[in-house]
Amino acid sequence: MTSAGPEIERLIQLLAKLPGLGPRSARRAVLHLLKKREVLMQPLAQALADADATVQACSICANLDVVDPCAVCASPARDPKILCVVQDVADVWALERASAFKGRYHVLGGVLSALDGVRPEDLNLATLAERAATAPVEEVILALPATVDGAATAHYVADRLAGLGVKVTSIARGVPVGGELDFLDDGTLAAALQSRRET
Amino acid sequence: MTSAGPEIERLIQLLAKLPGLGPRSARRAVLHLLKKREVLMQPLAQALADADATVQACSICANLDVVDPCAVCASPARDPKILCVVQDVADVWALERASAFKGRYHVLGGVLSALDGVRPEDLNLATLAERAATAPVEEVILALPATVDGAATAHYVADRLAGLGVKVTSIARGVPVGGELDFLDDGTLAAALQSRRET
Repeated sequence: MTSAGPEIERLIQLLAKLPGLGPRSARRAVLHLLKKREVLMQPLAQALADADATVQACSICANLDVVDPCAVCASPARDPKILCVVQDVADVWALERASAFKGRYHVLGGVLSALDGVRPEDLNLATLAERAATAPVEEVILALPATVDGAATAHYVADRLAGLGVKVTSIARGVPVGGELDFLDDGTLAAALQSRRET
Repeated sequence: MTSAGPEIERLIQLLAKLPGLGPRSARRAVLHLLKKREVLMQPLAQALADADATVQACSICANLDVVDPCAVCASPARDPKILCVVQDVADVWALERASAFKGRYHVLGGVLSALDGVRPEDLNLATLAERAATAPVEEVILALPATVDGAATAHYVADRLAGLGVKVTSIARGVPVGGELDFLDDGTLAAALQSRRET
C-alpha cells in the first residue's frame, strides 16, 4: 500500500516481479522513474514495447534477436563446424561477452529436472540431432551448468547424439581463474584434480 | 554487450539505471521479461505509460497521485490541524503503510545539503509557511531524516515557522522497536537517553 493511485500500485507490483527486485526496491524504482520521466520512464516504456514487438527466438538455435535467423546463425564469420549447446540465452550472452567461442549455438531453454517436471520434450531438443548430423558440423560442445540437473541433461544429450559421427565434448570443470583453492568446494577441487593435465 | 540487437541492449541499459539493478541483474530482468511477454512485459510497458500520463505532484503538498489535490489532501477524514513535513514521497508511503499518522503532509522534495548544493529555494518550502499559518493548522511535525542534513533542514524549517503561532515538533529519536542496545550506534543511544521519559 502506498496511498497513491492504483496506477502507481500496479507499476510497483509489476516491477516487484522482476528478478532482483522486491516490493521495497520496486517502490524505490517507481519513485525514481516518476522523477526521471523524460530520460527514463518514457524511454523505458518505449523500449519495452519495441523489444516486445521486434525480439523473437531464432528458428535455428532459439537465441533471441530482432532477426531470424539470429545474427550468430546468419554470420558467415562464425565457424559452422562447431555447435555449443547451452541452457539459456543468458549463457549465449555470457560466452559472447567472453569472446571465447567462434562457432554457433543451440539454446535448450532449460535443463532436464525431475523436481521441476522438465522433460526432454519441454526442451529445444528436436532439431539438435538434425543440426549435429548436418554436413559441416564436426563437434558439439556441451556447455551446461555444473549442477546435478545440468550433468543429467549433458548425459542425455550426449546419448542422443551418439552414433551421428560427431564429436561430443563438455566444457572443463576446474578452478576458476583467480580462484583460491581454500575457498572452493570439494566437488570443484575433485573435478579439477581429476581433469589435471601436463603443463 | 549481449550480441543481441540494439533493442535488447537499450532495454538493458535503461533497466540498469533503476536503483537496485546493475548491468548483470538488468540482463536477467530483460530475459525474464522476454519470457513472460503477455503477463509481464506488455503490462509493464502499459503501466509505465499509464503512470507517466496520470501521476502528478499534488499542488498543495507535492505528494504524487493521479488526482490533484492528492487523496490525502482531499480526504475529509484527515485531520486538517496537523501537517507532517517529510523529505520525499517515499516517506509519505512509509508513514501511510504504518497507518500511524492521520493528518496531512508537506513533501519538501529533498533536504538542504551544502555538499550536494541543495539550497532552500530548491525545496518545496514556498507554500509551507503559508499552509502552516492558515486557519485550522495547529501543529507542524518535522519527520525528516536523522542525518546531519536532515537536522539542518529541520532547524531551518523550524526557524521559518517561528512566530506563526503554530506548534513545531520533531519525531522522536531513540531505540527502534525490536532494537538491541548492543547493536545501536552511539548517537542513537545518546539521543534515546536524552529523550528518556517517565514510564
